[in-house]
Amino acid sequence: MGRKYVIGLDYGTESGRALLVAVDNGEEVATAVMTYPHRVIDDTLPGTGKKLEPDWALQDPRDYLQVLETVIPQVLKESGVKGGDVIGIGTDFTACTMLPIDQAGAPLCMKPEFAANPHAWVKLWKHHAAQPEADKINEVARARGESFLARYGGKISSEWFFSKALQILDEAPEIYTAADRLIEAGDWIVLQLCGKDTRNACAAGYKAIWDEGYPDKAFFKALDPRFENVVADKLNAPVLPAGVKAGGLLPEIAKKIGLVPGTAVATGGVDAHVAVPATAATSEGKMVMIMGTSLCHMVCGTKKVAIDGMCGVVKDGILPGFYGFEAGQSAVGDIFAWFVNNCVPASVAEDAKKAGTDIHGYLAAEAGKLKVGESGVLALDWWNGNRCILVDADLTGLMVGMTLGTTPAEMYRAILESTAFGTYTIIRQLEKGGCPITELYACGGLPGKNPLLMQIFADVTNREIKISASEQTVALGSAMWGAVAAGAAAGGYDDVTHAAQKMARLRKETYKPNKENHAQYEKLFAEYTRLHDLFGRGGDNVMKNLKAIKRSIRGVSN
Amino acid sequence: MGRKYVIGLDYGTESGRALLVAVDNGEEVATAVMTYPHRVIDDTLPGTGKKLEPDWALQDPRDYLQVLETVIPQVLKESGVKGGDVIGIGTDFTACTMLPIDQAGAPLCMKPEFAANPHAWVKLWKHHAAQPEADKINEVARARGESFLARYGGKISSEWFFSKALQILDEAPEIYTAADRLIEAGDWIVLQLCGKDTRNACAAGYKAIWDEGYPDKAFFKALDPRFENVVADKLNAPVLPAGVKAGGLLPEIAKKIGLVPGTAVATGGVDAHVAVPATAATSEGKMVMIMGTSLCHMVCGTKKVAIDGMCGVVKDGILPGFYGFEAGQSAVGDIFAWFVNNCVPASVAEDAKKAGTDIHGYLAAEAGKLKVGESGVLALDWWNGNRCILVDADLTGLMVGMTLGTTPAEMYRAILESTAFGTYTIIRQLEKGGCPITELYACGGLPGKNPLLMQIFADVTNREIKISASEQTVALGSAMWGAVAAGAAAGGYDDVTHAAQKMARLRKETYKPNKENHAQYEKLFAEYTRLHDLFGRGGDNVMKNLKAIKRSIRGVSN
Repeated sequence: MGRKYVIGLDYGTESGRALLVAVDNGEEVATAVMTYPHRVIDDTLPGTGKKLEPDWALQDPRDYLQVLETVIPQVLKESGVKGGDVIGIGTDFTACTMLPIDQAGAPLCMKPEFAANPHAWVKLWKHHAAQPEADKINEVARARGESFLARYGGKISSEWFFSKALQILDEAPEIYTAADRLIEAGDWIVLQLCGKDTRNACAAGYKAIWDEGYPDKAFFKALDPRFENVVADKLNAPVLPAGVKAGGLLPEIAKKIGLVPGTAVATGGVDAHVAVPATAATSEGKMVMIMGTSLCHMVCGTKKVAIDGMCGVVKDGILPGFYGFEAGQSAVGDIFAWFVNNCVPASVAEDAKKAGTDIHGYLAAEAGKLKVGESGVLALDWWNGNRCILVDADLTGLMVGMTLGTTPAEMYRAILESTAFGTYTIIRQLEKGGCPITELYACGGLPGKNPLLMQIFADVTNREIKISASEQTVALGSAMWGAVAAGAAAGGYDDVTHAAQKMARLRKETYKPNKENHAQYEKLFAEYTRLHDLFGRGGDNVMKNLKAIKRSIRGVSN
Repeated sequence: MGRKYVIGLDYGTESGRALLVAVDNGEEVATAVMTYPHRVIDDTLPGTGKKLEPDWALQDPRDYLQVLETVIPQVLKESGVKGGDVIGIGTDFTACTMLPIDQAGAPLCMKPEFAANPHAWVKLWKHHAAQPEADKINEVARARGESFLARYGGKISSEWFFSKALQILDEAPEIYTAADRLIEAGDWIVLQLCGKDTRNACAAGYKAIWDEGYPDKAFFKALDPRFENVVADKLNAPVLPAGVKAGGLLPEIAKKIGLVPGTAVATGGVDAHVAVPATAATSEGKMVMIMGTSLCHMVCGTKKVAIDGMCGVVKDGILPGFYGFEAGQSAVGDIFAWFVNNCVPASVAEDAKKAGTDIHGYLAAEAGKLKVGESGVLALDWWNGNRCILVDADLTGLMVGMTLGTTPAEMYRAILESTAFGTYTIIRQLEKGGCPITELYACGGLPGKNPLLMQIFADVTNREIKISASEQTVALGSAMWGAVAAGAAAGGYDDVTHAAQKMARLRKETYKPNKENHAQYEKLFAEYTRLHDLFGRGGDNVMKNLKAIKRSIRGVSN
């Protein structure tokens, strides 16, 4: 038997990527990426000239198929690997990204009679127009004392599945009725690949209030009598954990993409969550941080505990057999980018050029020379609200301690530190709630780009941080689930722990906490925490008051 | 009798200036400025190579004489005005800027036996090394229940006269003993001009705890037994209000500078305070704001009331016959400059260039397009601490409300607004204390440079602001006091009200408050005030805690 391969298919917000990986050692043999022809549809509905309302964000499902048919042949061609040596496919998708389909699985937007109705299209994760529905869901859930609220930090998001589904019912009941099913795009792509309608436990659990079952009919009826049977009518498919084989690749699609019919197709996955096995964090107490524009924290626990302010806790949600806790910070790299674009003077840009580096690099070098606490500047990392543990989009950024001698590097460092304090707050909340965090693993774009940030995270949290060696942790994770779906008999693995032992790779160098720095950071963290609680828990409402004044002038948008 | 003239001599921190003014209409005929050869001595003592300790700031009194002998002949030459047509000289000086002199009025630093001792030199206003002495003064005053504390916002500054005098006694008792007198530089220059040792009520009142008398001997004894007779021994000279003729110009100096012996020399003045008549604000309830790097507020009242958090209230301190209230903000233009130098991206610099303006101008134009409250950003103007009404140098800057969409212009506007809120806080405190403020007058460098700032000040305070038409308001004010010292019989004026009617000039255009903007600003000011009290009055000590951490690393300096 020759060398075997798996493919990870990673569907992001703007593009889709294939990663071809060797099963034996996780070698990343080839990768190909393609931008969606329609990218994010947030202005005009294609083919109609129809303007979308603010906060809408749609996609065209044909783009997903086009990506599939482009990038898979590309990695095969580039690598010279034969389709017959690919034993499994794993996929991941943004979530909740959902669409209405007919009985045959065809998206309603692809049917001429519905194409002009925006509700027939894919609602992307960042479609934010279902806020009234989310408000109603939260109101009804609170009134009924629904226990699921506690699992989601007390609040269901406008981005999630039932908010979006209820918006379709509210605004386009004809689409709701015409839809045979409503489905996550991540499950839809699996359906296209293998013809099996499955629902992945991760998306169901973190985005559709699933916990070995959805909320009961009475709850949905209380939202709208027509919504009573939404689960039975529109979601009637098995919910399966990651790494299960959903089915075998259909002959027609196999031919198009150059693979062999029957190749194992894993159940769908959510982008952040599939990264976990790719960092080898496949046991309890290991927190994986996907660090990019925002930060997603994932950790597996063995006890089901409700912890205030988390994004969710889901059985089998990350790894089978564990309770998966998800938390997050709504902006991290985004704040750094904002600072560099809006707050760094021309003189720094010139100095950076002279030093042969970019502004980030120059600021990091200057900020790295500062001792902890030396600048006297402290920030709250809420430029895009606070996702965890306060779950409040109306909070805003704060910086304090500036004097006439304060430098850009000092403010830059304060902003980096604030995001580390945000993560430390989440870690402490998890531990307080009964979910211990013993090790940190980082992946995503930031760890490779900003070593100072990683050292600050290690010093603040007083924990060693291991860094994924892969540039494509998410796609690699999907590929690993593909290998598990294929199973050992077919040349893959029977479980994810074995897959991770062979296929996951970490960098040799880790970030180790400096004890002295941590002791200093505990002092600063005490200040951070007091301000966090003061402004985040209603002690002083300046942020909300300013937003209310702003909204009274600008209208509802930000 | 031909046209008569007066000269205003303005001694600043870095340079001295003469302004030759026509008595009849205030026309500014000629001006000349000279930088002090030794500027500020804060590194090495001249002629000794001796390093000064941190926080020291000295000057060389010979520089003051050199300026005098340079700039007065220069304005005479430039204008063609004859020395005989100059009827009076008024002077103003930074304060408290003080020095030890011998019986003949010679500075001790000019004597070879003392020249190597830094305590023999002029201590400039911003000499900050007398903090231990100021602490002792405050401690003893509080313990003794000295009533004067209330007049100075509850605190005597390290910059003030007795702090500096006590430092001489503490660290150089031989200089203290050798000094026949200790004198404000502003009174020393008058002594040089006319041979009369007088003390101006303004400097005495605002800087030397004078209120129709200095504190009593028991107080000084409690500070140090050797200090008991400081007043009788070292300050034995009459205290006179502004506009009084201290004496006639001495023949020797008259010859050197091209004026006539006997020309009226007015009592000394303090730089900010002499600006008041130059804006024509010569009656009750008119607040004069000198707006530059920092902001000084002066207002005359008819009732002596102690108002918490003011810099001082002094009878005859600003205008004879009134109680002069002084307040201030320790940084205004300095914060704007900090922002422009440290927080404005290259893209804004480029856009400014394209628009044919500088960064300030460009930001002001962009910020001017914003509606009040539209940005959602709010700042506390404490980058250099808070002088009034909190009197706390350890407070620091704060900005809140930033999102990923926040622009440099929005932050710039928030900073301008914060300084207006600072002034509004002072106005409300004065009014609450029984000192009504009916009109605002502005002078200094900022009003001409930043119309947006002035409109914001008008809108926030809900008061019309009149702007001085003179570019040299301080020197003009000094010249006016010279005209009053000369008196009507000599071609001058008998009182400052008449002098102001003829010689002060305001711009035609004033800044009128916009009612709608003010109503919006009241909402923002409520937020500012709550944060002001929270962080400024001990509700939350984050600023001091951060400074304590910073100091533990950097040492005592800022």
